[in-house]
Amino acid sequence: MCRWIAYRGEATPFENYVTEPAHSLINQSLRARESAGSINGDGFGLGWYGIHPEPGLYRETRPAWSDENLRYLCRHLKSHLFFAHVRAATGTAVTRQNCHPFACGRWLFMHNGFIGNWSRLRRRVEALIPDPFYPSRIGTTDSEAVFLAMMGAGLEQDPIGAARRVMRTLSSLVNENGLSEKIRFTAALANGSELYAFRFSENDRSNSLYYRESGHDVIVASEPFDIEHDWSAVPENHVLISRAAQRVEIVPFLAVARTEAA
Amino acid sequence: MCRWIAYRGEATPFENYVTEPAHSLINQSLRARESAGSINGDGFGLGWYGIHPEPGLYRETRPAWSDENLRYLCRHLKSHLFFAHVRAATGTAVTRQNCHPFACGRWLFMHNGFIGNWSRLRRRVEALIPDPFYPSRIGTTDSEAVFLAMMGAGLEQDPIGAARRVMRTLSSLVNENGLSEKIRFTAALANGSELYAFRFSENDRSNSLYYRESGHDVIVASEPFDIEHDWSAVPENHVLISRAAQRVEIVPFLAVARTEAA
Amino acid sequence: MCRWIAYRGEATPFENYVTEPAHSLINQSLRARESAGSINGDGFGLGWYGIHPEPGLYRETRPAWSDENLRYLCRHLKSHLFFAHVRAATGTAVTRQNCHPFACGRWLFMHNGFIGNWSRLRRRVEALIPDPFYPSRIGTTDSEAVFLAMMGAGLEQDPIGAARRVMRTLSSLVNENGLSEKIRFTAALANGSELYAFRFSENDRSNSLYYRESGHDVIVASEPFDIEHDWSAVPENHVLISRAAQRVEIVPFLAVARTEAA
Amino acid sequence: MCRWIAYRGEATPFENYVTEPAHSLINQSLRARESAGSINGDGFGLGWYGIHPEPGLYRETRPAWSDENLRYLCRHLKSHLFFAHVRAATGTAVTRQNCHPFACGRWLFMHNGFIGNWSRLRRRVEALIPDPFYPSRIGTTDSEAVFLAMMGAGLEQDPIGAARRVMRTLSSLVNENGLSEKIRFTAALANGSELYAFRFSENDRSNSLYYRESGHDVIVASEPFDIEHDWSAVPENHVLISRAAQRVEIVPFLAVARTEAA
Repeated sequence: MCRWIAYRGEATPFENYVTEPAHSLINQSLRARESAGSINGDGFGLGWYGIHPEPGLYRETRPAWSDENLRYLCRHLKSHLFFAHVRAATGTAVTRQNCHPFACGRWLFMHNGFIGNWSRLRRRVEALIPDPFYPSRIGTTDSEAVFLAMMGAGLEQDPIGAARRVMRTLSSLVNENGLSEKIRFTAALANGSELYAFRFSENDRSNSLYYRESGHDVIVASEPFDIEHDWSAVPENHVLISRAAQRVEIVPFLAVARTEAA
Repeated sequence: MCRWIAYRGEATPFENYVTEPAHSLINQSLRARESAGSINGDGFGLGWYGIHPEPGLYRETRPAWSDENLRYLCRHLKSHLFFAHVRAATGTAVTRQNCHPFACGRWLFMHNGFIGNWSRLRRRVEALIPDPFYPSRIGTTDSEAVFLAMMGAGLEQDPIGAARRVMRTLSSLVNENGLSEKIRFTAALANGSELYAFRFSENDRSNSLYYRESGHDVIVASEPFDIEHDWSAVPENHVLISRAAQRVEIVPFLAVARTEAA
Repeated sequence: MCRWIAYRGEATPFENYVTEPAHSLINQSLRARESAGSINGDGFGLGWYGIHPEPGLYRETRPAWSDENLRYLCRHLKSHLFFAHVRAATGTAVTRQNCHPFACGRWLFMHNGFIGNWSRLRRRVEALIPDPFYPSRIGTTDSEAVFLAMMGAGLEQDPIGAARRVMRTLSSLVNENGLSEKIRFTAALANGSELYAFRFSENDRSNSLYYRESGHDVIVASEPFDIEHDWSAVPENHVLISRAAQRVEIVPFLAVARTEAA
Repeated sequence: MCRWIAYRGEATPFENYVTEPAHSLINQSLRARESAGSINGDGFGLGWYGIHPEPGLYRETRPAWSDENLRYLCRHLKSHLFFAHVRAATGTAVTRQNCHPFACGRWLFMHNGFIGNWSRLRRRVEALIPDPFYPSRIGTTDSEAVFLAMMGAGLEQDPIGAARRVMRTLSSLVNENGLSEKIRFTAALANGSELYAFRFSENDRSNSLYYRESGHDVIVASEPFDIEHDWSAVPENHVLISRAAQRVEIVPFLAVARTEAA
């Protein structure tokens, strides 16, 4: 199970969230050293917005905890909107191209979850990526395929609608032929100004998703990374929306997905 | 332009061909240091047959010339049939999964060449891979896709026939709609006992392909790597076949491909 | 705390011990996934003897659990004497040169332990490496420095004596000026025919060391990796000696080290 | 022979110099593809000053030309003072720790050159690093050792004096016992506001060193990377000094080094 954080607010150095706190994302990747838990040692990535409309990316295959470059970058990079992700691979190769976040045009995406029976369903999911976006398919993960399917489903104009359309299609797909494969989709999406975070699943329980606000700054995380602050859970099957200078909104995602999909 | 060698014969340490001679494959990857020429610094790979029917693989993204592990392995590994490849990427990512050789079941494959306009044709070529072989698609190169298409076209029973069928289909594909994209296909294929090497192109000149025999040992190479020996060129549009305890055979590949394909 | 195994006996594929069993070394590096324990994700290495007096080496910085090359090599390499090591770094960089085993001439060495306060004592320990062996100092670990100091102390002629001389000197060093830094030295050493394993500490408790014999095959491990077999512990401050076609011997190491050293 | 550039002036994105121009540093690392010349494929590095007194570092072992992270960072990072370096190793390992630039406290250093017979002289040069700086010795290159020796010789208070003292000592060293080993020292040094560049050699010709000014912006390079601008050569045995809001100064380095040293 991967872990990730997404930040939107006043421009801040990444180290405040990624490397420095006692319960930072990097320490979460290491936590298993002291207690039972999973290792997130199959690569990591940073994505951020700065002086261009398109985001920057730094992705590496080595574990986050031993990467000197990551510590330097988290100390020197500041951004008003950034993503960080540590990966626990679920079957696909440990390559930079399979590390999150993924970028396409102005958009950044990262994911904690999976599509069940990926080796059987992969081809069907890749078929959801329209031709103009297929050259952007440079890795082999389910996560990247879902992101590009969403790009093809109108993400640019209507991000939540695009996510809904793709998840409805995928929900149908995993229930075809009497099967009921699982989907877990706890994901973050951004375009340089807005930040969206999704918590959804099909035939399964959703992975956790939390956030906390402080003024107009918001941090969203796959799980709380400190105990000093109050974290709010995003309910299952909901979307978090964070826009500049506005309070976070939580709206239902696919309330009637299962019947609609059928 | 990648470079490769394939050996079949008495079991011999790889170093005799890969790392030691003045004109070894590794030195070919470095040759640009002294003279004009291309760099093959985008990863490399070894494939070999030993104590199992399935081949072993060692693939790395760093340049071959600075890999200590490669030197140790070439000094300690012996085989009666092995492949070595140094890569110059033509647009796809530098990952281990995109390095040659590729393995599937008992088969090894490596390639020097390309399919023109890959980002446009990729989807069509991937569609030639039947479902049972699609989970083996772990990289993103044209080379791996062609190999898996050949697996699906009956490689196991009839390797040359399978290569012919796939190349005919690809030749049609690159000539559709009045286009004439290029194909270069200089490739090696083996199953643990037989070794096949192909020299073919469409709308282009074929990359070079040479071999030399010594008793029942044969070495096939994308270009000669020494000047002390006589090398024979494989003619365009021909296949080299090397079977244990037999002399090399050279047979036509797709003599009438272009009209048949039309 | 690193983990390692060393094998001497009938030539056997590495996979029998390194990758395949439920409790293989690779699974030990992963064990924290299911239970509390340390992660050994800071690189790994193989060393083995084959067709040359000098050993082969394969060392990588990525975690052992995600290295496809390691699985291929363990499946295809056989040896009568091999080492495997997974690393948990204790302050020095994650580079191939800092991964175990280390090779020098005919000798292989690997280590689980440390010299306390290494950044202060490093210079003193490096000074124990005689000039002829200093060019072999290509990494920065305490382990490599101790090995090269042992090479300089006569390892070639008298391996146990050399280890004793170096450990006596180091024991003095860590107790100088009223300090009492710790040493843990659980190490394996081989020259292609004999295998030695040491369990020693100063100002501390020794890391564990176990072995089991089956006929003339012996496997030595930093900890037992299965529960189906009886493992014997090597007592603190003892050396295990395994010679071809002989039963294992366990002899005292530095019985009077502490007073002698003073 | 490595290549490097150093920039001081108005804050500018790195891409303007490192990745984008037809003759950028990255293209220099690739140039051998079209013409005779050396390959700089043994790692690379960036160093820069931003929101902290201590510089940031990004160093990687893969060739610069295939590193996606480098392209993203050069597009998104801006600085008033940055270094970029592509490496052609001269005998020491390809590790991140051996890639330039090197950082120590507020200082950045990078180097194109070598100390002749390094494996014999290494120990003597490392002995010039005082104890407080020895923990910063995390690689094995001659370049890092020279930098740390300079740190120990008073770099903080008097950077040019420290460089002079160390080069005098090294010049003596390479001429001891009737030998005359070579030194080439074409190096850049910075502390966040000043930039220094050295061109020196002993028993050899110095590597080239060029610069160009535009207003108060200065770019220093191991060789010119475009033909559209006028570049000035720094003479042998001279130092370039660039301070904020001042014109570049060129002053003699060790005019009487050879006799003084004797």
